Amino acid sequence: MKQKTVMAIDLGGTRIKMGLVSGSEILFSTEMDSQSGNGLRKRLPEIAKSMNDLLKQASLSPSDMAGLGIAIPGIVDSVNNKILTINDKYNDAPDIDLNQWAQETWGLSLFLENDTRSAMLGEWKYGKGRGYDNAVLMNLGTGIGTSAVIEGKILRGKHFQAGILGGHFIVNVKGEQCNCGNYGCAEAEASTWNLPEILKRYPQHADSLLFGQPKIDFKTIFQFADSDPLALLVRNECLEIWAACALNLVNAYDPEILILGGGIMASRDIILPCIEQKVNGNGWAVWGKVIVTEASLINTAALVGVGSLVI
Amino acid sequence: MKQKTVMAIDLGGTRIKMGLVSGSEILFSTEMDSQSGNGLRKRLPEIAKSMNDLLKQASLSPSDMAGLGIAIPGIVDSVNNKILTINDKYNDAPDIDLNQWAQETWGLSLFLENDTRSAMLGEWKYGKGRGYDNAVLMNLGTGIGTSAVIEGKILRGKHFQAGILGGHFIVNVKGEQCNCGNYGCAEAEASTWNLPEILKRYPQHADSLLFGQPKIDFKTIFQFADSDPLALLVRNECLEIWAACALNLVNAYDPEILILGGGIMASRDIILPCIEQKVNGNGWAVWGKVIVTEASLINTAALVGVGSLVI
Repeated sequence: MKQKTVMAIDLGGTRIKMGLVSGSEILFSTEMDSQSGNGLRKRLPEIAKSMNDLLKQASLSPSDMAGLGIAIPGIVDSVNNKILTINDKYNDAPDIDLNQWAQETWGLSLFLENDTRSAMLGEWKYGKGRGYDNAVLMNLGTGIGTSAVIEGKILRGKHFQAGILGGHFIVNVKGEQCNCGNYGCAEAEASTWNLPEILKRYPQHADSLLFGQPKIDFKTIFQFADSDPLALLVRNECLEIWAACALNLVNAYDPEILILGGGIMASRDIILPCIEQKVNGNGWAVWGKVIVTEASLINTAALVGVGSLVI
Repeated sequence: MKQKTVMAIDLGGTRIKMGLVSGSEILFSTEMDSQSGNGLRKRLPEIAKSMNDLLKQASLSPSDMAGLGIAIPGIVDSVNNKILTINDKYNDAPDIDLNQWAQETWGLSLFLENDTRSAMLGEWKYGKGRGYDNAVLMNLGTGIGTSAVIEGKILRGKHFQAGILGGHFIVNVKGEQCNCGNYGCAEAEASTWNLPEILKRYPQHADSLLFGQPKIDFKTIFQFADSDPLALLVRNECLEIWAACALNLVNAYDPEILILGGGIMASRDIILPCIEQKVNGNGWAVWGKVIVTEASLINTAALVGVGSLVI
């Protein structure tokens, strides 16, 4: 029998991805700017319109859909479909009744989940995590998103925050303050959102080529690492932080496989071996080696993952 | 109906505790030096003798026992009762067939588990963790032992190391090398076994009162913190490490309650508020506050915990 089709939305910080999804297959998809700084409520009519366009393209009606899955950054109560905490984007989301929106717009049941947990579900069911009952995803993007599957079950925890706060592991007690209030979190030490602050920590490198660039992201950092001492330094310090964060995830969750995703993984050739060496240099892992690999569903993991919750 | 009685052994690094256990009750108990540096095999006849003495005291025979539980530091395959890794004590333990020993000595089935996981089971079933489905134990002793209960289940993971490696979370990427090979683990930065090395990091304090002491442990550190600048400095740095480790545990496992045990908790008045503040200063915990509390079964948690596995 053919898999049921679902509507899936991935509310990213910069882009919103939408699709009609059947298992691992994205039948029709579209995307738009998220304008997440303006909140979510203003964007809902556009999202509904785009989704209806997809239905039209597919010659399907809402009643053909098994439900609606939405992936969103932040801490999500996936039992009551409530957004509990969200940081610096879609700030109005906790006050929106998305159950009601899904019902009124299409008559569909909603399945809401954290974005990295959705991506973990996608990679686990249809991507690199397939066949493993114990897996960890670490997404290096604007922040550091994490999620874990333990003993064949996605990890959620009592308050829905287990697994997804790996970016806020303290890896440098002497580090700088993070957006969560603590000091030395992996995200504060090595993520795109904090890159401008991270660079300020090296005033002796005021002549770095980096400061002449229109935009400094990790693509720039990796690109200039061969020629610019500051870029090399920042790259190496961040590699060390990511590796420490990855090791903490492995120590916490004991996975067979560690999947690395996110835009920064464009520099996979440098990142993967560095993390693999750290993770498998651990004296306690007598059973063998954690498989360290790149994610396979680069842009679609959260869409198919949150879609899988509907079925 | 009365709870079944079991034999329980807690193989600590310095002391071996033995008891006849019925639920939370220790009917008869004894203990001896572990001499763990000499291995476990040499100690087994003495352990058997002590256990038989307990049976005699209780006017019971091995056939009255429901089984034998053994708690041991290290990574333990609790399905096959194999010790996978053990560090610096009972080094011969991985080569001993304890199933066979239990059978041949008393005709009993064996239940083998990591010591901190056993203590977590004890606190969860009979101590401070009672009534909570999500709990974390952090034992500050010779090392830093950890364990977690998530969604009503003790966390073991694929290779039996989930939950118990919190002492090897990297909390200081710029830190010193640990006995596991990595750098900046919580244990390397703030535990009794590494205290002599930790003190060496402050050569400018050569005149510290600490160096005149016959034995430097955390009791000494806390005692001298009021009068000696080095003791105060080390105490504060270690508090910071323990708090970071505790926060990482909370971020990893999302517990309702964090239970602190181990000998260093004799300084509970200073340690508890410090950890509580760090753990609950986390910007993500919108649901409320993690209960931070001292363990209640100070010396018996592992005994009654591993005993609970038998029944």
